[in-house]
Amino acid sequence: METVYFNGKHLPKDEIRISPDDRGFLFADGIYEVVRWYESFFYDITSHMVRLKRSLRELRINWSEADSFPDLASDLLKLNKLENQPAMVYLQVTRGASRRSHSFPSPEVPPTVYAYSWGFVPDILFKETGIKVMLKDDIRWSRCDIKSIALLPNTLSFQEACENGLKECIFVRNGLITEGSHSNIFFVIDGTLFTHPESNQVLSGITRKNILRIAQESGIKIREEAVPENRIRFVREAFISNTSAEVTPVTELGGNTVGEGVPGPITRLIRDKFDNEIKVLKG
Amino acid sequence: METVYFNGKHLPKDEIRISPDDRGFLFADGIYEVVRWYESFFYDITSHMVRLKRSLRELRINWSEADSFPDLASDLLKLNKLENQPAMVYLQVTRGASRRSHSFPSPEVPPTVYAYSWGFVPDILFKETGIKVMLKDDIRWSRCDIKSIALLPNTLSFQEACENGLKECIFVRNGLITEGSHSNIFFVIDGTLFTHPESNQVLSGITRKNILRIAQESGIKIREEAVPENRIRFVREAFISNTSAEVTPVTELGGNTVGEGVPGPITRLIRDKFDNEIKVLKG
Repeated sequence: METVYFNGKHLPKDEIRISPDDRGFLFADGIYEVVRWYESFFYDITSHMVRLKRSLRELRINWSEADSFPDLASDLLKLNKLENQPAMVYLQVTRGASRRSHSFPSPEVPPTVYAYSWGFVPDILFKETGIKVMLKDDIRWSRCDIKSIALLPNTLSFQEACENGLKECIFVRNGLITEGSHSNIFFVIDGTLFTHPESNQVLSGITRKNILRIAQESGIKIREEAVPENRIRFVREAFISNTSAEVTPVTELGGNTVGEGVPGPITRLIRDKFDNEIKVLKG
Repeated sequence: METVYFNGKHLPKDEIRISPDDRGFLFADGIYEVVRWYESFFYDITSHMVRLKRSLRELRINWSEADSFPDLASDLLKLNKLENQPAMVYLQVTRGASRRSHSFPSPEVPPTVYAYSWGFVPDILFKETGIKVMLKDDIRWSRCDIKSIALLPNTLSFQEACENGLKECIFVRNGLITEGSHSNIFFVIDGTLFTHPESNQVLSGITRKNILRIAQESGIKIREEAVPENRIRFVREAFISNTSAEVTPVTELGGNTVGEGVPGPITRLIRDKFDNEIKVLKG
């Protein structure tokens, strides 16, 4: 039986009982994080911790034990015998359980903290061949910088992509490409690497941040600037990034072949450098 | 002990166990309804049923027993000895419990259906004196016509109103007033009743619909047209509506006194006609 973490304890999963009064269940009033375990270390856990605390702060959820996350995540891996294989840990923190009311519980109640881990088989094929993605109007709220569990628009959009045989849904807001339903997106135009700047329109991806660092270290020209949908014909390369996809090339974007329809040289360079960093960290 | 409804059964509330895999908890992937019991009948249950089925259809959640809602709601009232007093019934339907993935569960899983009831003491004071409300940029997604549980933006906005001593947060999108965090809003300008038209920007409130009918029957000129924020100075009367507030006058809007700062004549006319209809229905 899988062991999960719930409100301070590691327990068998089937003992977990989310209250029907939980504000995560009633209002999507919570946040989450996903960290990746590369057989011996969590990737950039420092940045995940910074983002986790920011999400909590933005929603004013007081989880005083937030600093315990790396430890509780490691314990989860050990208890589930995952410490020697690729794995992921999901963490969700909600404002807790309280009689339903749009306003925050008063007096405050303890947050609900839930985490689980799983063995993760990375998708090597798509990192090599690239993926096709759809383009769609961004139907999400205006605080996409918060990693909240209010993911209904993301699931609906991603499902639409899947049903069209596509691997991600990329959003367009006011004519500008923002990000994917659960990834950031990068473009190469005229040899320059473009991605949407940090703002309330996109999530500040941890992989995104590291890609920008790698690109800079590689002498690639960077512009953190949104690409308008009507400039897609100038895009020579594209790739998405997130914790599980790492750097995954995009070969078709909203029905348009990107460049030659195969992963381009800058994409491959960044992907290889990213992979190499992981290799070095593995030791 | 309170009796609630959960997946086909009426059970003591503390026996309800929401799975941590529930898509309502992980993704806000679900919808809800709230119906009001006026001591002997549910108000316009037909319209609530139409909206419930539309919400389910829009999210493609298959709850084959949707037609049983009025019966299960009545049973809840009886089991909780609420049938002879004012009460409410809350219903929530999610896409069910399945290993976390942005795409819909495949194969499909049964939806999670949860409902509970409570004795409801209407707030007579505010219906008489009116309320003050704040104005704020609409931070919500673009499918506000779906009564989804992705309510994080609504709770954050309503909380902000409460902390400012205000009773509702009214949203403004692209300069136009849409609706409240959990109400519709009406305005009287030059003797004409305005409210935002049905669209993906607002919820099609059941009370809203009945108010429009009452206004029409009363010979009041109606325009289902959004009021721009910069026309607030021309607003002589305003009121919000929802299942619990019914017709509640607004006397201050974003710091601006509405009309004379007391409920206006058209507001009072509609409120009184609404109340009278309830009285007649009670028999």
